[in-house]
Parts: sequence; structure tokens; C-alpha cells
Amino acid sequence: MTRKEQLREVIFGTDTRSGKGFDLALLVAISASVLVVMLDSVESFRLEHERLLITAEWIFTVIFTIEYGLRLYCARSARKYAFSFFGMVDLLSIIPTYLTLIITGTHYLAVIRVLRILRMFRVLKMVRHVSEGSTIIRALLSSRAKITVFIFAVLCMMVIMGTLMYMIEGEQNGFTNIPQSIYWAIVTITTVGYGDVSPDTPAGKLLASFAMLIGYAIIAVPTGIITVELQRENRRHFKSCERCGNNENAQSARYCHQCGERIIAADTPREA
Amino acid sequence: MTRKEQLREVIFGTDTRSGKGFDLALLVAISASVLVVMLDSVESFRLEHERLLITAEWIFTVIFTIEYGLRLYCARSARKYAFSFFGMVDLLSIIPTYLTLIITGTHYLAVIRVLRILRMFRVLKMVRHVSEGSTIIRALLSSRAKITVFIFAVLCMMVIMGTLMYMIEGEQNGFTNIPQSIYWAIVTITTVGYGDVSPDTPAGKLLASFAMLIGYAIIAVPTGIITVELQRENRRHFKSCERCGNNENAQSARYCHQCGERIIAADTPREA
Amino acid sequence: MTRKEQLREVIFGTDTRSGKGFDLALLVAISASVLVVMLDSVESFRLEHERLLITAEWIFTVIFTIEYGLRLYCARSARKYAFSFFGMVDLLSIIPTYLTLIITGTHYLAVIRVLRILRMFRVLKMVRHVSEGSTIIRALLSSRAKITVFIFAVLCMMVIMGTLMYMIEGEQNGFTNIPQSIYWAIVTITTVGYGDVSPDTPAGKLLASFAMLIGYAIIAVPTGIITVELQRENRRHFKSCERCGNNENAQSARYCHQCGERIIAADTPREA
Amino acid sequence: MTRKEQLREVIFGTDTRSGKGFDLALLVAISASVLVVMLDSVESFRLEHERLLITAEWIFTVIFTIEYGLRLYCARSARKYAFSFFGMVDLLSIIPTYLTLIITGTHYLAVIRVLRILRMFRVLKMVRHVSEGSTIIRALLSSRAKITVFIFAVLCMMVIMGTLMYMIEGEQNGFTNIPQSIYWAIVTITTVGYGDVSPDTPAGKLLASFAMLIGYAIIAVPTGIITVELQRENRRHFKSCERCGNNENAQSARYCHQCGERIIAADTPREA
Repeated sequence: MTRKEQLREVIFGTDTRSGKGFDLALLVAISASVLVVMLDSVESFRLEHERLLITAEWIFTVIFTIEYGLRLYCARSARKYAFSFFGMVDLLSIIPTYLTLIITGTHYLAVIRVLRILRMFRVLKMVRHVSEGSTIIRALLSSRAKITVFIFAVLCMMVIMGTLMYMIEGEQNGFTNIPQSIYWAIVTITTVGYGDVSPDTPAGKLLASFAMLIGYAIIAVPTGIITVELQRENRRHFKSCERCGNNENAQSARYCHQCGERIIAADTPREA
Repeated sequence: MTRKEQLREVIFGTDTRSGKGFDLALLVAISASVLVVMLDSVESFRLEHERLLITAEWIFTVIFTIEYGLRLYCARSARKYAFSFFGMVDLLSIIPTYLTLIITGTHYLAVIRVLRILRMFRVLKMVRHVSEGSTIIRALLSSRAKITVFIFAVLCMMVIMGTLMYMIEGEQNGFTNIPQSIYWAIVTITTVGYGDVSPDTPAGKLLASFAMLIGYAIIAVPTGIITVELQRENRRHFKSCERCGNNENAQSARYCHQCGERIIAADTPREA
Repeated sequence: MTRKEQLREVIFGTDTRSGKGFDLALLVAISASVLVVMLDSVESFRLEHERLLITAEWIFTVIFTIEYGLRLYCARSARKYAFSFFGMVDLLSIIPTYLTLIITGTHYLAVIRVLRILRMFRVLKMVRHVSEGSTIIRALLSSRAKITVFIFAVLCMMVIMGTLMYMIEGEQNGFTNIPQSIYWAIVTITTVGYGDVSPDTPAGKLLASFAMLIGYAIIAVPTGIITVELQRENRRHFKSCERCGNNENAQSARYCHQCGERIIAADTPREA
Repeated sequence: MTRKEQLREVIFGTDTRSGKGFDLALLVAISASVLVVMLDSVESFRLEHERLLITAEWIFTVIFTIEYGLRLYCARSARKYAFSFFGMVDLLSIIPTYLTLIITGTHYLAVIRVLRILRMFRVLKMVRHVSEGSTIIRALLSSRAKITVFIFAVLCMMVIMGTLMYMIEGEQNGFTNIPQSIYWAIVTITTVGYGDVSPDTPAGKLLASFAMLIGYAIIAVPTGIITVELQRENRRHFKSCERCGNNENAQSARYCHQCGERIIAADTPREA
């Protein structure tokens, strides 16, 4: 194994002990750097510890830059990594701090601060390091089409509800225009209910009640979709036996746990 | 194929390439026209771009009028189309703009604007163009009776809760009458919680707490109903084998995928 | 069939045509009488139509009194009916109006109005007339124990959360005492979120965030319980065995699980 | 059976009649003591009944101290009990009252009251006495990993949403810093929606709408996870057939309902 391959195993791998250690260290570094960005936005804290925050910010940026360089160096294909989703995230998470050097001048400061906040996207990197999420993600992906249709249908309903509410309540009760009324419909149907905009007339309250009941009842739809999908995911890890038809053998099984037959088949194709 | 039949395939069909193209173009036109109505309601935007909005409004109305005419012309039965749900929606989505011509005069303007907003119902047409929604709709339809009973029972509970709250809190705390108190009960039990009306007395807070817990627990009922229905929808595509009892054969299967037996049976009668 | 039996079939029965007609008429009468009580609480309406409301109130009370008398007369056991749940509700829904006659004097009026509102419990009678609700009620009843334990556990958590919040936020931020703080915890964990009491300190916001996440995640528990129970309800249509009489074979069973006999029989009607 | 064993059966056991009686008595005592702490926090009540509250507090503390002593005495291993979760809770629930004796002086009073509130943790003891909760707890424990991953992913999304909102709305609209904005994101995505912080700009409202829809749709994920887990718990009571692999035979089955084979096997090992 060459040096490059060893390095790849540590940085990209998650199976070896050093690979796990690297991932853990990175997780800690990312969490700490996110905390620094957070604290930097708290005015009272920033005024007191400005020097500390800037130093920490630069240390993390240098660490993540080195990490990004190493990833580019030891990836099987530097190009492929650079244009992958996490390659982009890795790059985007270090750029904002460097930009504060180029764009100087006092009146740009506000913009710079905003750019630095973009580093918060670093947290996205953490998701990669959690393997247990794959079942959930797979279930979400396979129910993607249904969830999309559902959200689209709900959005249509929100547009109509919002428009009706604009007609009923009008501008004097906070429903100043249709987009604002649609915002109210979203707040209501998702059962968030801020209360910053709420109906005043009896007719408006009747329509609002209807919208709430709709929102309360149809929350069941995405839940049903995901539940059915997760059940299917659960069953997908079984192997079936050629002889007795038992299709609940563990993925690692070499013999059927029902009849002892040698298992040759791949995953049971459960879907119709 | 006559010209009329070709036209029908393009306008009503969704299988041919030109049929899909037509649907997509229509979808874009509907979305754009809805956006125009939305922007028209935003005062600052309307004052600046009044001419543009009126022009766009008329262009869309003419397009949809032509579309409606073509649909009437090439439908298998013009009468049947005109009185179908989407025939009505298609007509309703073009009428308001024409009405602005008939009803003139400055003091009717407010009413006219309201009529134009009705065109927003055009969005309903978009649902038709999404085929993936059929499974969800089928599940919702077959659980219709149970969902109705559930919503009715919840409404009864809301009426009683609202009345009790009116007795406890009274008019001085915002619960001015029973309908208003029922509105509060709906806001609370559906977990929306605007906060525009909320209990002040300890007894009122106790009852409100009870209402919230009820609302929190029974949300489970519609979810359970829909989930069970979606599972049934999922399983409706399987055939069962007479020999080994495997009942997850694909609908198209001619031999059991477990034991190789010839399948004679119709759909698995899973339901009682 | 005697006259009494015929009357019983009309009043208590739901299978004959006249029985259904009676139930429907009663449903309309109950709805109308509830509407009268509601409108009576709206001040502007009451001042204008006082005579009409009082007349309607008395007509409904007389109708329901006659109905109650007939039920007592033709019930298989008058005593049993009178002490049944709906016998009590039937009686309670007519008493308040009569009480307004006995308790006279101006300063008792408020109390009287409160008593009259109790007639609202009449809506409870409507539930009886809807047969489709039985599956839902059976599922709710069989999951009663688990739901109770769940609500109890959630209540314990709310007590602890409320107490911690009282310690953190204190009286100056609206958390005036522990019961008030527990009310806040209920409002938060059930995701109602009125906003009448909300944390101000960073520590309070942190604990509130934790409470919200808990509330958001554990809503899954009652949903799961009810879903599983509804599935079981669905499957409860068992098949009986011709040979040994075992009537607990699953719907999908092809052989009796007690004696191994081939099953030919149709569905066993399980409900007693 | 020695006296110690008899005592152990009463105090720790739940099967004998005296064991159940002891648990019930303890439940009542805990509830009453929690009520005392609650009422103590209500100023108007405390000022009137101070002597009563202090006396009740001391009576309960003495009772719980004796109980703790007896548990230590008759436990199979006093050391093991003392360091168990409920051993710690038992100890923590009596300490605060004794501390009020040691730490005297007027200006420490506030601190003392806080310490006494810790006794509220006594409610935790009640959970132990409810056996029906075990199924729910087992389902929650086995879905622990997935729920954790889900909550972690949701937290990441909340951090990003909060940061974006801080950039869009800024300090003048209540989003004073990133932690505060993350608090807003939690309030919104969990659909609590206090309304103490809410977006004012159109861009902020658009992002908020997006966050609400996300929160509304992904609530389905924990629900799906728990439902699937509860179903698995439910099925754990089935027997599998040696011949055909059918593993949904009732626990009481003597023959497989699919193929008629005699069943010898124990519970089906369902987990992979």
C-alpha cells in the first residue's frame, strides 16, 4: 500500500481505527468551528472576546484548508471529488474566511460578516459521518415522488385558501396582499400558528377553522407514506431460500435458518 | 384519425409526446397567470407595473379562452365536458376577467378585483396533470368514511370544549360568545395555537391543557387510518400461490416466485 | 308485534326505514337546537331576536321531553335505559331549560344561562347515530391502556419541565408559579404554542427548545399505537374450522392451526 | 421466608396483594407530596397556609426517608440499589428538604426554595410502578439509534435555517443573533409557533414557509420509525412453521395455517 493509499484510508475510510479517529476529530473540529461562528453573532460576547474569536476562526479555516488539500491529493479522482456534493461543501466552508482578506474597507464589513456565516454550511459535512441515517434516507428517497405530489397538492390548497382569505379579511386585518395571505395559510395549515396574522371577521374565522381541520387531518398522508416505505425498507434485508421459500434469512446467512438449504439467491425482490 | 381526434389526443391525452408538451405548456401558463394575480394584489408592485399586469392578464385570459373553446370543440361530448368538474373550473377561471368589462364604474372596482381573484382557482387544474397522486387519492377516498366520522367526532368535542370554555372564561377574557369559543377550541385542538384568544383563569388553563392533550393524542387516529389504507393499496398488487401460500407474487407473475407453482388465482383477497 | 314493540323499532332501531327516518329527524332537531344555544350567546343576535330564540328553545325542549318519555315507555327496561350513558345525556339535555322556570329573579340569570349551555351536551347524542365510528372506537378502546400510560408519562415529563422552567425563568418572565409553568410545558410539548407565556433567558430558550424537540418526536408514539391497533382491527375477520370448530384462524389461513384441517369456510362474523 | 424477604416482597414486589397495596399507597403519597411543592410555589396560597405546607412537606420527607431506609435494608444488594437510577432518584427526592435545615439565613431562602423544587423529581418514581409502559419503552429503545440520527439531522437543518434567517432578517426584526435565530427555527420546524419571534421581510417569510413545510412533512419520519417498531413488538408473539416458513401462526397454533404442518418450534427469531 502506497502512502497515498494509506492516507486515503484514513481520510475517506471509516472502517479502520485511524479512519474512525480522523472522522471523530473532524466532527469535533466542525462542531467547535460552528460554535465559534454562532458566538461571533452574539454582540455582547463578540465585543469582549473579539481577538479570541478571530484567532479561532483562522485556526479552523487553516485546518479545513489543509484537510481540503489532502482530500484533493489522495482522492481516487481529484476532479470527481471537487465537483461532488461534499467536495463543494468542503470548499464553500473555507472560502468565506479568505474573502474577508480580499474585500477590505469599513463599509463592506457587514457583507463580509454575512459571507462568514456561510461557513455554517460546514455542519452539512457532519451528516456524512453518520451511517445509521441511510435507512431513513433510502425510505425518504423512495417515497420522494409521493411526498412531492403531496406537498404540491397542499401548496395548491394553500394558494386557494390564502386567496379566499385575502378576499374575506382584506387589507385592514393584516392580509395586505395575496402572498402575505398565502404565508398565513402555510402558517395555519402546517399547524405552526404564529398568530402574527390571524382572522378577525366571523367568516374569516370560519374559513380559518376549515383550514386548520384540513391541516390537522392531512398530516396523516406523509406519515402514512413514510411508514409504509420504512416497513418495506425493513423487509429488504432478507434473503430467500430456494427450497422452502423462507424469505427472512439474515443478509449474512449462508444456510436457510428454516430448512438448512444452501442459499445462493441474492436479495429477495420484494417489490411487485 | 380525423383532425378532431388528433386535436383531442393533444389536448386531453397525456401519453403522446405532443400531448405531454401541451400539458407542460399549459402548466407554465397557469403558474404564470396565478403569479400575475398574486403580484396584482401587492400594492407597491401594482402601482408601478399596472399596464404590464393588465396586458398579461388579458393575454392569459385569451389563451385560456381559446383553450376552453378547443376543449369544447374536440371533447367526445361537449356537454359532458362543460358540466364536468374541470370543465366548470376552466370556465370559472376565465369569466372574472371578462366581467371587469361589463361591470364598469369606479366604485365597483373593489368588487371586480375580488372577481379576478377567483381566477386563482386555475391552480386546481394543475392537480389533474400529475398522475402520481392517484395512489394517495385512492387511499384518501377509501378512508373517506372513517376520516369523516373522525372529523365529525372531533367537531362535537370542539363544540363541547368551546361551550365549557365560554362558561369558565366568559366574555371579559376574549371568549365573547360560543362560536368564538369554538373557534378557540379548533385553534387549540388542531395544535395551531395562534394565541389571539387564550385562557386567563386557572380553571380555563386546566381545561385548555386537557383540550391540548386530547388534540395531541387523537392526531394519531387519522394517521393510523391513512397508513393502514396506504398499506392495503400497496398490497393490492400481489397474487397468492395455491401451493406454498406465498402471497407476494407480482401482479404479472404466471409462476410463484417462491416454489415455481403455476398461479391460477386472481388477486389475493386480502380484505375481509 | 305489539304497538310498543313497533315504537321501539322506530325509536331505538336503526335498520328499518322508519327507524332511519326517526334518527335523521332527531339529528336535524339536535343540530338546530345546538345552533339556537350558540346564537343565544352572540349578544348582537340575542338582543334582536330574543323572542324567537326563547320560543325555539322551548319547542326543542318539549320535543326532546316527549322523545325522552317515549324512550322510557318503550325501552325493554325503563330503569336500565334511564341509568345508561345516553339515558343520562337525554335527561341532562332537557333539565336546564326547565330549571330556568324554577329559579327566578334577576340575579340568578347568569347561573341560568350557564345551565342552559349544558344543553350543548345534546351533541353527544349525535355520536350514537353514526355507525361507521365503531371501528375507530374499538381501536381506541383496545389501545386505551397504552395511550393512558403514554399520556401519564408525558404528563410526568411536563411536570418536571414546567418545574425546571419555573426555576430558570422565575416569576418576572411570566412563569409566576409551578402550575402556570406546567401549563406552559403542556402548551409547548403538545406543539400548540400560544405564545402567551414564552421563555426570555437563553437558558430558558435552551430548555424550551429541548421540550419542543421532545414533543415533536414523541407524537410518534400514540400514532404508532393507534396504527398498529387499526391494522389488527382490520385483520380481525377470522376464519373458523369445519372439523374442530376453532374460529381464530387468520384470514390468510388455508389450514386450521389447531387440527390441520383444510379450511373452506367463509368469514366468521366475530362481533357478538 | 425470613422477615427481610417478606419485607422485600412488599416493597420491591408487585405481584402479591400487599406488594400492590404498598405501591398504591406510595403512588398516593408521591402525588400528594408533588402537589404540596406545586401549591408552595403559588404565592397567594403559600402566604395563607405556610404552616400547613411546611408540616406536610416534613411529614412526606420523613415517610420517604423511612421508605428509603427500608429499601436499603431489604434490597438484595444495598450497594446496587443505592447506585441504581431509582436509588439515586429516591435519595435526591429527600435531600432538598433536609438541606433547608443546614443552610439557614434569610438571603439563602430563594436558593432553598429552588432546592426543594428538586423534590419534584419524585414523580419519576411513579413511572416505575406502571408495568404497561414496557412495550412502549422497548419499542422506543430499539428505535433509539434511528430517532437519534433523525433528531441530529433535524438539528443540523435547524442550525442552517436559523443562520440563513439571521442573514435575511437581521437584528432589527428580532433575530438578534444566531442562537436566537436557531431558537426561532426550532419553534417553527417543530410546529410550536409561539410567535415571539417571526419574520417581517418577504424573503424571511418565504424561508419561514419553507421551514414550516419541511417541519410538517418530516414529522412523518419518527412516526414511521416508531410504528414499524411497535409492529415488530406485536409480531414477536408469532410461531413459525418448519415446513413452509410461514411465520405468522398464532402463539396458540398447533398446526401451520399455511400448509397444515405440525408446529414444534418456539417463537420465531424475527431479527436479522
